[in-house]
Amino acid sequence: MDKLKHRILTEGVALGSDRINVDGFINHRIDTSFMDEIGEEFARRFAGVKVDKILTVEASGIAIAVSAARYFGFCPVVFAKKAKPNTMNEGVYQAPCMSFTKQTLNEITVAKKHLSEGENVLIIDDFLAHGEASKALASIVEMAGAHVAGIGIVISKDFQGGKKALEDMGYRVETLASVAEMNDGNIRFAD
Amino acid sequence: MDKLKHRILTEGVALGSDRINVDGFINHRIDTSFMDEIGEEFARRFAGVKVDKILTVEASGIAIAVSAARYFGFCPVVFAKKAKPNTMNEGVYQAPCMSFTKQTLNEITVAKKHLSEGENVLIIDDFLAHGEASKALASIVEMAGAHVAGIGIVISKDFQGGKKALEDMGYRVETLASVAEMNDGNIRFAD
Repeated sequence: MDKLKHRILTEGVALGSDRINVDGFINHRIDTSFMDEIGEEFARRFAGVKVDKILTVEASGIAIAVSAARYFGFCPVVFAKKAKPNTMNEGVYQAPCMSFTKQTLNEITVAKKHLSEGENVLIIDDFLAHGEASKALASIVEMAGAHVAGIGIVISKDFQGGKKALEDMGYRVETLASVAEMNDGNIRFAD
Repeated sequence: MDKLKHRILTEGVALGSDRINVDGFINHRIDTSFMDEIGEEFARRFAGVKVDKILTVEASGIAIAVSAARYFGFCPVVFAKKAKPNTMNEGVYQAPCMSFTKQTLNEITVAKKHLSEGENVLIIDDFLAHGEASKALASIVEMAGAHVAGIGIVISKDFQGGKKALEDMGYRVETLASVAEMNDGNIRFAD
């Protein structure tokens, strides 16, 4: 997605050799019109794929998932929780997930009642680094006996291996911007 | 908003005397079409009010804020963070905020660069209990020299005092469903 790459280069900030700050338009301040375009682009990428539900993880994935859902017939969005609130007291699926940016290990949680056997679930997230969050989400989909329809990522840092690992597991991964390499504050895209 | 009240009564679960679980359509599984209607309703409530930006707090507020933003001319959404990620290393505004459902004290954080002096900021959130989150968000808006255009809440538990406290502070508060009383699993709306 050329417009996304352009914004990453002009508004994003490369931090060290492996982090990209896009908090001006994606994950702190949200450009809601651009987010709508991102949602539409995911629908284009996954055209012809049956999607019954979108699954993401709080917090940055929510805006993307909700914006995309509109273009998948207003399908429901479920977001996995990083901490179990005291209003969640029924059966849950859980999977361990290391946060790359926060360096914390979370047990991400989805209530069992919100995933159904046999449904087609599209996983959406903002970043793909080592693939921890997507792997955890995919394992939860499979625990439920549902099917991973695909994985849609806004920005993949391909050099950290997450994309390849997920593809090796048999998942279709669509990334709107794929970063092949970062050094000295420079970002080189894969294509 | 009658449709919201109906869904709270039919799909929500009253927990004890003061908690309502609406995780089937608002804050775990999101009914994205209904969320869009909620967003439109906020625009109706705040018609004629100048809104330059919407401010919420992660995670449940994000879907609501992004859905509403479309009806406020796709204005930007900023969501306050409950934990400071390692990609956030510039000046920040912070305010303490007790989470009612999680019983944890967070310091909510907004990067200074994402709020500007003089702009009109609409605060949006899913629940209003004691008003802790809205007060923290309002104090951050004021630290930035910006103006609180109003506070829009999906479900207010009026009996916990948050709505009155915010109105006493001079803020305009619009709540789509106001719960006057809860007991024995029964919910009574204020109007």
